[in-house]
Amino acid sequence: MPLARDLEHEPASSDRLQAMSAVPLSPERRFASDNNAGVHPRVMEAIAAANHGHATAYGDDRWTRDAEQTFRDLFGRDIATFMVWGGTGANVMALATMLSPAGAVVCTDAAHINVDETGAPERVLGAKLIDVPHRDGRLQPEQLRDFAHFTGVMHHVQPSVLSITQSTEWGTLYSAEEIASLCDTAHSMGMKVHLDGARIANATSALGGTVDSLRSFTVDAGVDVISFGGAKNGMMHGEAVVYLDPELARSAPYVRKQVTQLPSKVRYISAQFVALLADGLWLENAAHANRMATLLYDKVAAIPGVHLPQAPAVNSLYPVLPADRIDVLRDWSFFYDWDVHHHQVRWMTSWDTTESDIESFAAGVAHFLG
Amino acid sequence: MPLARDLEHEPASSDRLQAMSAVPLSPERRFASDNNAGVHPRVMEAIAAANHGHATAYGDDRWTRDAEQTFRDLFGRDIATFMVWGGTGANVMALATMLSPAGAVVCTDAAHINVDETGAPERVLGAKLIDVPHRDGRLQPEQLRDFAHFTGVMHHVQPSVLSITQSTEWGTLYSAEEIASLCDTAHSMGMKVHLDGARIANATSALGGTVDSLRSFTVDAGVDVISFGGAKNGMMHGEAVVYLDPELARSAPYVRKQVTQLPSKVRYISAQFVALLADGLWLENAAHANRMATLLYDKVAAIPGVHLPQAPAVNSLYPVLPADRIDVLRDWSFFYDWDVHHHQVRWMTSWDTTESDIESFAAGVAHFLG
Amino acid sequence: MPLARDLEHEPASSDRLQAMSAVPLSPERRFASDNNAGVHPRVMEAIAAANHGHATAYGDDRWTRDAEQTFRDLFGRDIATFMVWGGTGANVMALATMLSPAGAVVCTDAAHINVDETGAPERVLGAKLIDVPHRDGRLQPEQLRDFAHFTGVMHHVQPSVLSITQSTEWGTLYSAEEIASLCDTAHSMGMKVHLDGARIANATSALGGTVDSLRSFTVDAGVDVISFGGAKNGMMHGEAVVYLDPELARSAPYVRKQVTQLPSKVRYISAQFVALLADGLWLENAAHANRMATLLYDKVAAIPGVHLPQAPAVNSLYPVLPADRIDVLRDWSFFYDWDVHHHQVRWMTSWDTTESDIESFAAGVAHFLG
Amino acid sequence: MPLARDLEHEPASSDRLQAMSAVPLSPERRFASDNNAGVHPRVMEAIAAANHGHATAYGDDRWTRDAEQTFRDLFGRDIATFMVWGGTGANVMALATMLSPAGAVVCTDAAHINVDETGAPERVLGAKLIDVPHRDGRLQPEQLRDFAHFTGVMHHVQPSVLSITQSTEWGTLYSAEEIASLCDTAHSMGMKVHLDGARIANATSALGGTVDSLRSFTVDAGVDVISFGGAKNGMMHGEAVVYLDPELARSAPYVRKQVTQLPSKVRYISAQFVALLADGLWLENAAHANRMATLLYDKVAAIPGVHLPQAPAVNSLYPVLPADRIDVLRDWSFFYDWDVHHHQVRWMTSWDTTESDIESFAAGVAHFLG
Repeated sequence: MPLARDLEHEPASSDRLQAMSAVPLSPERRFASDNNAGVHPRVMEAIAAANHGHATAYGDDRWTRDAEQTFRDLFGRDIATFMVWGGTGANVMALATMLSPAGAVVCTDAAHINVDETGAPERVLGAKLIDVPHRDGRLQPEQLRDFAHFTGVMHHVQPSVLSITQSTEWGTLYSAEEIASLCDTAHSMGMKVHLDGARIANATSALGGTVDSLRSFTVDAGVDVISFGGAKNGMMHGEAVVYLDPELARSAPYVRKQVTQLPSKVRYISAQFVALLADGLWLENAAHANRMATLLYDKVAAIPGVHLPQAPAVNSLYPVLPADRIDVLRDWSFFYDWDVHHHQVRWMTSWDTTESDIESFAAGVAHFLG
Repeated sequence: MPLARDLEHEPASSDRLQAMSAVPLSPERRFASDNNAGVHPRVMEAIAAANHGHATAYGDDRWTRDAEQTFRDLFGRDIATFMVWGGTGANVMALATMLSPAGAVVCTDAAHINVDETGAPERVLGAKLIDVPHRDGRLQPEQLRDFAHFTGVMHHVQPSVLSITQSTEWGTLYSAEEIASLCDTAHSMGMKVHLDGARIANATSALGGTVDSLRSFTVDAGVDVISFGGAKNGMMHGEAVVYLDPELARSAPYVRKQVTQLPSKVRYISAQFVALLADGLWLENAAHANRMATLLYDKVAAIPGVHLPQAPAVNSLYPVLPADRIDVLRDWSFFYDWDVHHHQVRWMTSWDTTESDIESFAAGVAHFLG
Repeated sequence: MPLARDLEHEPASSDRLQAMSAVPLSPERRFASDNNAGVHPRVMEAIAAANHGHATAYGDDRWTRDAEQTFRDLFGRDIATFMVWGGTGANVMALATMLSPAGAVVCTDAAHINVDETGAPERVLGAKLIDVPHRDGRLQPEQLRDFAHFTGVMHHVQPSVLSITQSTEWGTLYSAEEIASLCDTAHSMGMKVHLDGARIANATSALGGTVDSLRSFTVDAGVDVISFGGAKNGMMHGEAVVYLDPELARSAPYVRKQVTQLPSKVRYISAQFVALLADGLWLENAAHANRMATLLYDKVAAIPGVHLPQAPAVNSLYPVLPADRIDVLRDWSFFYDWDVHHHQVRWMTSWDTTESDIESFAAGVAHFLG
Repeated sequence: MPLARDLEHEPASSDRLQAMSAVPLSPERRFASDNNAGVHPRVMEAIAAANHGHATAYGDDRWTRDAEQTFRDLFGRDIATFMVWGGTGANVMALATMLSPAGAVVCTDAAHINVDETGAPERVLGAKLIDVPHRDGRLQPEQLRDFAHFTGVMHHVQPSVLSITQSTEWGTLYSAEEIASLCDTAHSMGMKVHLDGARIANATSALGGTVDSLRSFTVDAGVDVISFGGAKNGMMHGEAVVYLDPELARSAPYVRKQVTQLPSKVRYISAQFVALLADGLWLENAAHANRMATLLYDKVAAIPGVHLPQAPAVNSLYPVLPADRIDVLRDWSFFYDWDVHHHQVRWMTSWDTTESDIESFAAGVAHFLG
């Protein structure tokens, strides 16, 4: 378990700020998280268009059939896709259908499933997460092999699923080759591979920005099941559990309901996915967010007090800041702690971040750290 | 466990129908379920209005604060309200915060949590549901007392929560007095009371149609926690877990996330609830649906082959039909089986059902049963 | 859920009794339960004999290998057997290895797993028990078929395991043909069959008393997994989970430990099973207990106030008694309530019951009911 | 998660050994584990003495009342004690009664509950174990405080129970002061403290060998609940869950049965505990095992190839051996791997180890490593 991040609230009252002179205006859109952003207009239009008449609940509707076909086209394979409510639910459902009896999930100690889901996997799956130390957010094949000797020993959980995140919780990327190597190792140990793709669009954009880029690190690399994110990339709600190995989907319809992740009016999620995926909006949004993160890096990296050794790979920065400046800056424009023990915070861009937001925010950083 | 209902699909191809002459046009809106209906225009407007700029995810936003206040006003008490994704999730979250160790939930054998949630309660709670035979969908205080001798005996689960549904799965209602009596019995046995209010608006409408009506069978009757439904009454998605006893809400923030029911962009759910509740739309919608059910009853009850001994209390009818006529009628306009062993089906109206829909449907019933 | 039995305690102080004259002496061995009896001397000898030197814990020892071979010989097949601590644990472990995802267990409402295990199955399995009304303790094939329409419907748990008890909780027996018919029905629905054999010896004795009798209603009838009881038939502790279908045993080594049922010093359980099974002691003990129950029936059935319509099939009687006589009789010689709502109690014989115990007990019944 | 130990089997066939000349005789009692030893004669006598007549099952018998009183006397306080089947079960039951909703257990990465219980805690509790790096098997207060910022944040599990092991899995000891400090820190964070005392007797012996020694690091230090071991110290089966804080025991009777840890014929466990505890046998056995470990260390530490930097604190040694010598030595006299990645094994003494066993074993080590 890593030493993790927290603190979620709206800015405190601005009394303190009023006492200061010459405080720059805070940016209209904050850098707290990509799920603080709203819904993309084209997605909103799709929702409105779906709001016509009756449709069978629970997925037997034409929007959902369209969305399922869209996912099949995206991956170029006869896959099975299931719409669910949210990201934690997508992960839990995917893992619930992948685990063997007495099986464990191997992941990094920084994994969202390990740190940021309030133990939902352990509660709903009744399974152990074996968390191994991440390296820049990533897991290495030899860390899997370290647990090979568990297999067949009745006193130990049986390594059953590898879960990786792409892009990672630390804003880094696995190359397609690295994922292929992880999949090879996992499969050779009798394990399945889950990819938490809450920000799979940002990863795809960073790795080439094409459908082939996506396939290279998923279906071609050997990934078995994906939690395919929507809400962080311009949707209102909804994620998809994508079974690249449809054999694993056999229990999925029942398990989805059993883990409370079957939406009733699915059409409103499906319509969003079609709008996002059908003509490249998902990659446009992600590319924009990634580009804005690079711009933010360019604007703030040189500000004294901001310790930011690396340019971002996707849409987040993890600066270390002077301990006594964090709260005042956060009061001015909200963001999250990342590692409270090292005064490290997270700044994140989204599909709707503007250059003007970045100018404002960088001005604030310079002001409050000055 | 009752012998339950199933069969969910879109109408089969209409080939069979084309062979028939003089088949009436099927209704534009079906009678399958109130969750087959779309989103009410005023709710949709509220969603669109909320789609502006950034808002902290997970509930620390002004729409959610407004919704929480709206619920406080509705119940006239300093309650705690938590937005969640769906109805099964609302029930599971509520029960998870109410159960004592080794505790069991007492409910009817027709309860949604018992029959229609794919065992989500057992899986996520790890608790037994003690299901007792319903009488017209209702549970009686003496059925609770039958399990009083379990209390304190280590070989038996400990009755811990009573879960009732209002309006019931059979379209019936508890009176305020009946619920008060159940609450008294439950509390005297050391139990808490959960009310599954997936259709609480329809019940409120039928029991007087005022805020006082709502309070009479909930907060005044002694109910502790409510699953307050939204999606079946004109919302797109979202339910609320309402803690009339805020003491029970202490673990709710963590449990909500742990059972995968914490929405990220909560504002879009909260805004819907405000639109629905703030100026009576929830009761308008419910009253309309209830009225349409009565109208449907009036139009079909006398058709030969339709066995419908009772007028509806809320928005659903449960006719017994000739076994060989059910599929052809369903192919023409989809609805669900209710009790497959007795050829009983369910017809349900919704906020958007029109008189014209009812005319068309009744004509079809007469045609296919003729 | 049935209305069940409880009340476990030692006799209250005998003050009340002293006030009475001519109270007969209570029997040396009571009729409370067969698990109130001690350990058979030959079993105790086997334990002492096993207490020599070191043995690998967790089952890799020669006593366990002998016990496994003894079970193979008993069933005449290459089965897999796992020693566990107790009966509830055996049932939970067996079911844990048999259930499919989102699967449910079908059993009677009187089943031990349903009423007398404090919800252990629901907690440890996370699965629903679908309890159907028993008829004299038994379940009928058509009660299984009533749930066939659940299969394939995502809103319902999927019937996955049938669990029956032989002899039943009501002291009755399935014939070999009845079990074969249940197995056929279950298998045709894609289900597996579990037999709770806490008193399988008593059943075997009553059905012929040979190894062939045992096989007729288990391996020959199509049962997949047995909880094979030891403690109620003269052992100190220990039950065995017997996989007649060894394919189902693949995850058993891990699941046994995971559900806390892997004994460390297994040799002391295995040695008991060898002593019990190797030369027919298990059937001797059971035959004796059954015979004593018949004798008890002969002695008490005609006593006024004792309502006992049927002679026992195995080793228990379920008399209905005058409500105001139960406690005084119980104070004199302890036994359990069976159905508190109908003043029905349970009297049970065991491997060590003597004719003298029965004479004494019958005298007391006559005295206190006189 | 540490990289753990495994490999459980009886010695392979001795063919390989026959080919060698001058192989010393292997010791009569091995050094694999203290649960490979048998039952102490005085404990066996107590079992035999308890085997008389009938006793109410499930704990309402005089042996169990005696055992409960014995534990009260031992801790000098009005505690609550529950007999259970085994060590994993004791831990799971204890934690099940201690955890708050959404609560997590903090333990070391070497903890038995974390590595050697096949995920039983996660499965039965549905809770996360937060494992922190051990230092010589021990956990430090600051490692607890590292998770203080989780408290109150809804995305993180809530630290709820600290579980420490005394003596630790690495054969080390916490001082009474260290445990008091851990308890203070845990309690100040709103957590409860569980002590896994599978080898609590060995720890007590090493820390002074008196009842006061025991109290100093348990009840006086602030520990709330103990898993009190029996099977590794001369018992046949049985552990006790001891609630030093009886308030926590309120749900224990139900939870014990629900996690499958309620023995039926409890008297046979209780009688063993009385025999062990009543007149100091538990400390005699432990002192002997500890002394034998020191003797073994004295005999083998200087043998070339044996890397053993520290004398044992209790009854186990963790030598690093030449990789190519481990299997041949193990074939000669079985023991377990400890850290397969570092060629580290575990040698353990028990209550019945003799000096002659040690002479033989040391001779073998010298022979095979020579």
